[in-house]
Amino acid sequence: MSAFTVDGLHETAYGAEVGGEADAGLLAGGGGGPAALRPLLGTVLAALERGAVERGGPLPAGGPREVSWRVREAAGAVLPEVGSGAEAALDALVGAVAAGAADPAEPLCAAHLHCPPLAVAAAADVAASALNPSLDSWDQAPAASTVEALVCRELARLVFPGTGGAEADTGSSCGPGAGAGTDAYAGADALVTTGGTEANQLGLLLARQAAGAAGGEVRVVCGANAHHSVHRSAWLLGLAPPLVVPTPRGVLEPAALRVALDGLEGAPALVVATAGTTDTGDLDPLAELVGVARGHGARVHVDAAYGGPLLFSERLRGRLAGLRWADSVSFDLHKLGWQPVAAGFFAVPDGAALRPLEHCADYLNADDDTEAGLPDLLGRSLRTTRRPDVLKVAVTLRALGRSGMARLVERTCAAAVELADLVACTEGFELYARPSLTTVVFRPVGGDDALVAGVRRRLLERGQAVLGRASLGGGLWWKVTLLNPLVAPSDLAALVKLVEEAAAEGTVVEGADA
Amino acid sequence: MSAFTVDGLHETAYGAEVGGEADAGLLAGGGGGPAALRPLLGTVLAALERGAVERGGPLPAGGPREVSWRVREAAGAVLPEVGSGAEAALDALVGAVAAGAADPAEPLCAAHLHCPPLAVAAAADVAASALNPSLDSWDQAPAASTVEALVCRELARLVFPGTGGAEADTGSSCGPGAGAGTDAYAGADALVTTGGTEANQLGLLLARQAAGAAGGEVRVVCGANAHHSVHRSAWLLGLAPPLVVPTPRGVLEPAALRVALDGLEGAPALVVATAGTTDTGDLDPLAELVGVARGHGARVHVDAAYGGPLLFSERLRGRLAGLRWADSVSFDLHKLGWQPVAAGFFAVPDGAALRPLEHCADYLNADDDTEAGLPDLLGRSLRTTRRPDVLKVAVTLRALGRSGMARLVERTCAAAVELADLVACTEGFELYARPSLTTVVFRPVGGDDALVAGVRRRLLERGQAVLGRASLGGGLWWKVTLLNPLVAPSDLAALVKLVEEAAAEGTVVEGADA
Repeated sequence: MSAFTVDGLHETAYGAEVGGEADAGLLAGGGGGPAALRPLLGTVLAALERGAVERGGPLPAGGPREVSWRVREAAGAVLPEVGSGAEAALDALVGAVAAGAADPAEPLCAAHLHCPPLAVAAAADVAASALNPSLDSWDQAPAASTVEALVCRELARLVFPGTGGAEADTGSSCGPGAGAGTDAYAGADALVTTGGTEANQLGLLLARQAAGAAGGEVRVVCGANAHHSVHRSAWLLGLAPPLVVPTPRGVLEPAALRVALDGLEGAPALVVATAGTTDTGDLDPLAELVGVARGHGARVHVDAAYGGPLLFSERLRGRLAGLRWADSVSFDLHKLGWQPVAAGFFAVPDGAALRPLEHCADYLNADDDTEAGLPDLLGRSLRTTRRPDVLKVAVTLRALGRSGMARLVERTCAAAVELADLVACTEGFELYARPSLTTVVFRPVGGDDALVAGVRRRLLERGQAVLGRASLGGGLWWKVTLLNPLVAPSDLAALVKLVEEAAAEGTVVEGADA
Repeated sequence: MSAFTVDGLHETAYGAEVGGEADAGLLAGGGGGPAALRPLLGTVLAALERGAVERGGPLPAGGPREVSWRVREAAGAVLPEVGSGAEAALDALVGAVAAGAADPAEPLCAAHLHCPPLAVAAAADVAASALNPSLDSWDQAPAASTVEALVCRELARLVFPGTGGAEADTGSSCGPGAGAGTDAYAGADALVTTGGTEANQLGLLLARQAAGAAGGEVRVVCGANAHHSVHRSAWLLGLAPPLVVPTPRGVLEPAALRVALDGLEGAPALVVATAGTTDTGDLDPLAELVGVARGHGARVHVDAAYGGPLLFSERLRGRLAGLRWADSVSFDLHKLGWQPVAAGFFAVPDGAALRPLEHCADYLNADDDTEAGLPDLLGRSLRTTRRPDVLKVAVTLRALGRSGMARLVERTCAAAVELADLVACTEGFELYARPSLTTVVFRPVGGDDALVAGVRRRLLERGQAVLGRASLGGGLWWKVTLLNPLVAPSDLAALVKLVEEAAAEGTVVEGADA
């Protein structure tokens, strides 16, 4: 009879009849999903192993053109007319990407806020891929939406202690995920984001809406040390460019902020402070900055994308004193939290602050459904379809506990101190400053911008190390962002020696050794 | 001597010495990553299997409160002081999320644009999690950035055939990922997004910037059938609310668009058309709409998040005639492309159109690095840190080929025709219209909003089926969005029978059967 057969559509991609033997292996979900995944995951693991051996270091040698060529050779046609089958495609492409990775699990891959993920987190992420819950409505993610609500509340309480209300003790509700409705906004809450960039954007957006509700336009005020996403978000949201306060000492200073806010003469302002700058890992003096901002009636957003996880450590959380008085906070667990990207969060001391994000789409959160107890999730992100990035976070927090997370944070911070000591006692090198987090910045004594840039690129092209760079005080510096909790003293010594040797070669003509 | 030992920080989260036996299993990357992942993936697969059995259907029974309670019981403390270890955490949380999933691989889970992912795609995604490349700079993703460039170009050429230029034939460059610089903008290109929502936002953003460069403000014009993200994006970007053209027949009609554009009297306008509406899967008459828009000097963005993958099928791609003349196009492969979320794309006929997204952050794309051949990737997203969602897409395209993707698309479309036929010949049911894509909309003859809403919620609460809803022509309808390429005729018959039986129970008091 039907369209199923008339068009000859019984053949699947794998060439068998629908419902036939090959179909059993097509989908990742359902009762048969795990059996379908098992052999394919074996292929992936083998390709990852082979790729790491082929690469033989923190990144592939050869530079962009050669790496690109090798990937093209391995990958073959992007969209062939007839497919190669699952095993061959996984083997070729996963192998090529592993062989051509800058792998942050290698101790000499230490340029960026680019962390080596925990195995437990990467494993948990498979369940997100296989089940594919989407967090824009309850009927796409019944359990995952509860997990998200629980984790977001718990992390928000870590940022804003003492703001959980009765709910924190009784566990009688999980907010928006509970479908309770009445206390959806009680106490501190957080949203999951794609990272600090989206979280900073949310901070600016809420400030824009608050000022707009009062008939004004918010002016963003940030230090010269703030992340570029603060500027990009202002542009995206149609706001004036941020007012930038100079930060000659690397941090936003209260006195300088006071001058800037005085100049605004009472216009609505959002102060963006940073807990862990990208260039140096410095921490702005949050408590004092909040005091100044409050004195001027300004809101405060803290970009703690990098430094936020110090909160896990009883020893180190004091460095974030004042964070709890912010109006909103960005923090990532794909930096000092060892999650695969993405694991960003945007926290507020009171969930009611998130109301401007409420949004209605009848097919997802019709009034009668919400009244009947179906949770309304659409206001929990600016995205619609949304992967449960929170699952890997939930599994990690449960697996390691607060003390386990603390130990990884503390050890990574300690490794940075060790590296700074090593650099400080290395002849010919100049340390920028003692590390506040896990970033160590140094250069040849007296500075030599061309040498710094050249050595960095040379180490990249040779596949020897992934080193970062920072422009500070008019000069260029090497930047090592340590995020590997397993880095050993011998790795740090090897890194310093490598930079020494490359620097001793002097400034070479670009590309001559590529 | 050092901070490594002074603070007693040699203990890791798993209680062993750094560098000791337990550390070998901590990270997902590096040479030891695959060995660390292997047993953990086994735990995940076992928990997925157990969860599917426990659930025993398309979603868990009991409704939001009961599901939430079960997840809390299984999950335990979110952030315990001492962790439970990786295996226990994976077992508990993955098991709970699987048991409480609305699994789109189950044929009766068919409410939303929420697809069952292919096993090959989910397996490939593990490599993204383990290696954790971040696509904001070359030195975090040497190979992955090349894969992204290749796939984006290929998919863009599928949308905009004949726009690839010489590059398409010679394969001598892959654009921004190649580090070539000179032809970075030659021919059609695409950006990876978190989904149609972000892609639509980019369409509006580019239109805002183009109008702004000419000193004007763009007015967005869309049909009443357009996705809610068009409105939300306008709000986010600080634009006036879109001018909404009524769509009584479900599609944006050229005559109605002409009237709307006439009313704007030549002001800069962006027309947003839809290829696959969320409510009915209808396809706007793109070729005619582009003609009307061009006649008024307006830009055109097509939201083909749902319908775009028809392009894989030689038989079906004619339904998208005119798409190639758009200024920009959204399309997702986490709908009719069977990818785990996220796999969104934003395509333009000429990469030069993406220039307004260029952005500089010295630590990621300093001028001297770019001049020395390091690709500048920061303009390829509004995000900074960014997961290589493209890897699973690349593996899938290679595994299935164009013909394999086409067969899955065709078969799913054919299943929708079959379901529509079945509904049309079921007494007491009224079919809204023949399906254009894979969405089938129906209701009790004559309509009964309370019954439609009640039946949907009843099936959800009982864990029997995940059915969608659509408000059309002032009435409420059931919506079945078929995205499972393996759905069998018997599944469709079972679905219709289930709705019939639930409807026969009449309108029950809300919650009485929960």
